[in-house]
Amino acid sequence: MKEMKNMLIAQSGGPSSAINASICGAIARGMASSRIKHVLGAVNGMQGFLERKIINISDQMKTSEDFDLLIHTPAHALGSSRYKIPQENKEIYGKIAEILKEYNIGYFFFNGGNDSMDTVNKLSEHLKRNGEDIVAVGIPKTIDNDLELTDHCPGFGSAARYVATSIAELYLDTIVYPMPAVTVVEIMGRNAGWLTAASALARETGVPAPHLIYLPEVDFDPDAFIEEATRLIAKDRHILIAVSEGLHTADGNYIADKGSAVDMFGHKTLGGAATELEKQLKHRVKIDGLKTRAVQLSTLQRSAAHCASNVDLSESYQCGYRAVEAAVNGKSGIMITIARISDIPYVVRYDEGNLDQIANREKKVPAAWITEGGTDVSEEMMVYLRPLVTGETSELIVGGLPRFFRFDLDKTVLPWEVA
Amino acid sequence: MKEMKNMLIAQSGGPSSAINASICGAIARGMASSRIKHVLGAVNGMQGFLERKIINISDQMKTSEDFDLLIHTPAHALGSSRYKIPQENKEIYGKIAEILKEYNIGYFFFNGGNDSMDTVNKLSEHLKRNGEDIVAVGIPKTIDNDLELTDHCPGFGSAARYVATSIAELYLDTIVYPMPAVTVVEIMGRNAGWLTAASALARETGVPAPHLIYLPEVDFDPDAFIEEATRLIAKDRHILIAVSEGLHTADGNYIADKGSAVDMFGHKTLGGAATELEKQLKHRVKIDGLKTRAVQLSTLQRSAAHCASNVDLSESYQCGYRAVEAAVNGKSGIMITIARISDIPYVVRYDEGNLDQIANREKKVPAAWITEGGTDVSEEMMVYLRPLVTGETSELIVGGLPRFFRFDLDKTVLPWEVA
Repeated sequence: MKEMKNMLIAQSGGPSSAINASICGAIARGMASSRIKHVLGAVNGMQGFLERKIINISDQMKTSEDFDLLIHTPAHALGSSRYKIPQENKEIYGKIAEILKEYNIGYFFFNGGNDSMDTVNKLSEHLKRNGEDIVAVGIPKTIDNDLELTDHCPGFGSAARYVATSIAELYLDTIVYPMPAVTVVEIMGRNAGWLTAASALARETGVPAPHLIYLPEVDFDPDAFIEEATRLIAKDRHILIAVSEGLHTADGNYIADKGSAVDMFGHKTLGGAATELEKQLKHRVKIDGLKTRAVQLSTLQRSAAHCASNVDLSESYQCGYRAVEAAVNGKSGIMITIARISDIPYVVRYDEGNLDQIANREKKVPAAWITEGGTDVSEEMMVYLRPLVTGETSELIVGGLPRFFRFDLDKTVLPWEVA
Repeated sequence: MKEMKNMLIAQSGGPSSAINASICGAIARGMASSRIKHVLGAVNGMQGFLERKIINISDQMKTSEDFDLLIHTPAHALGSSRYKIPQENKEIYGKIAEILKEYNIGYFFFNGGNDSMDTVNKLSEHLKRNGEDIVAVGIPKTIDNDLELTDHCPGFGSAARYVATSIAELYLDTIVYPMPAVTVVEIMGRNAGWLTAASALARETGVPAPHLIYLPEVDFDPDAFIEEATRLIAKDRHILIAVSEGLHTADGNYIADKGSAVDMFGHKTLGGAATELEKQLKHRVKIDGLKTRAVQLSTLQRSAAHCASNVDLSESYQCGYRAVEAAVNGKSGIMITIARISDIPYVVRYDEGNLDQIANREKKVPAAWITEGGTDVSEEMMVYLRPLVTGETSELIVGGLPRFFRFDLDKTVLPWEVA
């Protein structure tokens, strides 16, 4: 019989409402496995791991209520980092392997998006090349829904539910006064417009909003925008426009370009596409008394656990759970994927995708799912989206307010304590 | 026996998640009354009423599901207006009385805030003075919670629940990265800081946020702000600051002052207090790598029906219901008020307040409920706030998304159709 080893899980990238459901599934499966001794967690992703900020999760999750709370707690309970391993830094994988061995870790899990999957992929290759008895498996997470090989990504459905619900409510808020009004709502998504496309689900509630949907997959034409908006305001009086933060013109310039600011991954810092379009509407639409408003859904769209989709939370849990099962069965260099069997009834199957085909790629909204004028999405998109936002979250509410699970992230362990 | 007459309800001011619960209570009581023939609604408040945009609500609400949907639909289902009757315009009340008689209306209800209550008050006086057999009663509504004589205002509890829940979620989103970070969240409330104070309820979820609370009742000191924020970031690393849109310095200048823009009521157009404070933090706090973010809770804080408080919705319903009972009993020139009997258990009684003591006044946060430094609220405030956000909304959700009730606002009636 194989020797018992520890497992370690780390989280990375941007927050989501479902990311802790994923580690919850992994922790539960890990704690129940006869092959796994301790379930460890790295604090603040790879950055904290390299600094040996490692906690013993098995010691901190004692009751079934802890698990229930963790599932419904938004944003990385273990903390995240934006640290990206530089391409040229090959030695780092050796250093990671050393720390893994130090803590007797046989199973490494990384819960994140495209960049994180690149790390898992390279680490897994390094471990195989060096004959280490350690596996590395990816657990998908991104509200951007842009990972390859998987039908959709954990975290997306909850963000989509929040976006669609909020857009419907914002529309009802837009129409109350007699004067013509337009609300421009900005939604996250740099290069992939999935979440902005999900705004179309607001129509399921019976409202006509959004009237226009602008995705980063389509080059933005400012003149056509003003023409189309003017026509719709003249016709419907009150309209709502959904716009992706990554909107850009044909020359590649972002509408929200704030200059040369970039984040630690070298991505441009965006924000303000809605504000920019609102300004254009205010100055260029020739309709008397037009009231304009820009709304940023802000970081709430990725952290509003109170509006999570239960389908998303349970799929996210399953992805974590099955990652541990795959690892215990010796798999490495893979990510758990979701394959859709059927739309109605909605049925999925969990699968494994090779990280070579996932890392550093971005799945964008297919052109066939965008309508001809480029300002709406097709019925195929709606069929795809509908099941993902279903199921109300059942988070614990006391006195009208949610309760959360918090790890003690300062209670780090030393290697000999978990040997 | 008294002759049957029609009743008419109109809505005014800014949206809330509970405003339709109030008209729902009024409509239900009106439809069940042997003294009331038709329940009519004015489209777009007093502005639409003066243009005789009047619909027959009795014809449009047919099933109990319609009532249930209307209770949970945010933002004025009858439309609103920002039209304020000029002080010097005395003849307008004569015109209103003429239209009321034209449509055989014996009971007039206005659902709104301070400005609306002034209208009801003056109209009621005019009707009494002229011996008209018509009564006018106010139904309170404002997320600002600033109406006199009532313990709190319909709409406030739901907005407070959204604010507290969102602040807790935004805090969890703020702490994920290792670098120091501060999130500044802007909350509605020009002169009264009740809703900003409600952000303190986020702590009930177990998070330490907000770390600082800035109300318009306290003169803002930019230097003390930077000093206090610096101290807290150095201590806690990640902090969240709640700030009212109406924040101003001792000289009366708004932090968010955008120049001379005013709305149709002559109020200054505000927005951007959080953005301004974020800018100050970015430039003046000397802490390496500090990440700053400004979040506007936007119009969602007043229209996010999905996060409504059930206590608020049922109290709002009762205010509408009891307004009709009072009117049928001959009362006029009053507004239904909520009197608190007990905090724990939470028990209220409905009462009637004289509009003379309500119209055009603003109830601000008492100084005794603000802590000494002016950056937090006292336990008395918490005791006051806690019951108001309790009870989860039970809105109809289909496929993960809400459903709403919409009146056909174009289907206006002529006087002889409802005579």
